[in-house]
Amino acid sequence: MEKEELLNNLKEIFLKYNLTVSSAESCTGGLISSYLTDISGSSKFIFQNFVTYSNDAKIKFLNVKKETLDKYGAVSEQTAFEMGAGLKPYSIASVTTTGILGPTGGTKEKPVGLCYISLRYKDTIKVIKYISKKASGNIRYEIKKDIVEFALAKFLLFLKNILN
Amino acid sequence: MEKEELLNNLKEIFLKYNLTVSSAESCTGGLISSYLTDISGSSKFIFQNFVTYSNDAKIKFLNVKKETLDKYGAVSEQTAFEMGAGLKPYSIASVTTTGILGPTGGTKEKPVGLCYISLRYKDTIKVIKYISKKASGNIRYEIKKDIVEFALAKFLLFLKNILN
Repeated sequence: MEKEELLNNLKEIFLKYNLTVSSAESCTGGLISSYLTDISGSSKFIFQNFVTYSNDAKIKFLNVKKETLDKYGAVSEQTAFEMGAGLKPYSIASVTTTGILGPTGGTKEKPVGLCYISLRYKDTIKVIKYISKKASGNIRYEIKKDIVEFALAKFLLFLKNILN
Repeated sequence: MEKEELLNNLKEIFLKYNLTVSSAESCTGGLISSYLTDISGSSKFIFQNFVTYSNDAKIKFLNVKKETLDKYGAVSEQTAFEMGAGLKPYSIASVTTTGILGPTGGTKEKPVGLCYISLRYKDTIKVIKYISKKASGNIRYEIKKDIVEFALAKFLLFLKNILN
């Protein structure tokens, strides 16, 4: 789906169900928030978004547990889940990312391009593991864009499945 | 200056002076944060960034005064200044935006494309008024990108003038 179509579809579902929306981003660094605010009228459903780049920021703003970060790492299903839960006070629906953009920091277990995405509607949270096809190119912006468009497409589907 | 050159120059000055950096964005919606985190190794100087889209978020996360918002509006020199001051606890240097992307919401006094940008190094805050040349096209993403690249170019100059 093209970016414009994706954003139009998201806007439609946000408005139809009176959703408020928020994001908390680690690896995507604000690009999800930027996409969502490319929607004209986004101030109707977006009030604040977070870029929680460090572990401390994940703890401070999203109540991610230090033990979770220590045990599983920032790039993990568990951290993604807690990032999603941490946005409950801020919106009805949310999307978060935590991953490894590279070019350094990848391992065999957690390669460059790996991202955990949380999708939330009220108390329902789904975590998706994704490995960006763009990772071999190792261009941060390309990986980021790929993750953002994947995450938002999944967010749309997730909301449609629950709400429609 | 091309995006890549701009980001390389910012990275150089951030690392040379051991700066930590943060952003708080209203109209640019996360795109400044996304640009800054396109820099490889950005986790060394960026810990958290904010997208404070609503007035409430500006008050809650940045300590912008309600009276300032009421008296001058969110898109004003005064609000921009307070947004910059509000980032002091989070970083040594910062950049913030508040403006009108349109297509609606513009007035004769505050037209679509108007943005107030704050640049901060420690306690020194400079506010710049900018009207995007892209405003007549009325494409949100284009105005946003124009403001982001203007703001970051000015941020680089501002830091160079103080530090070099």
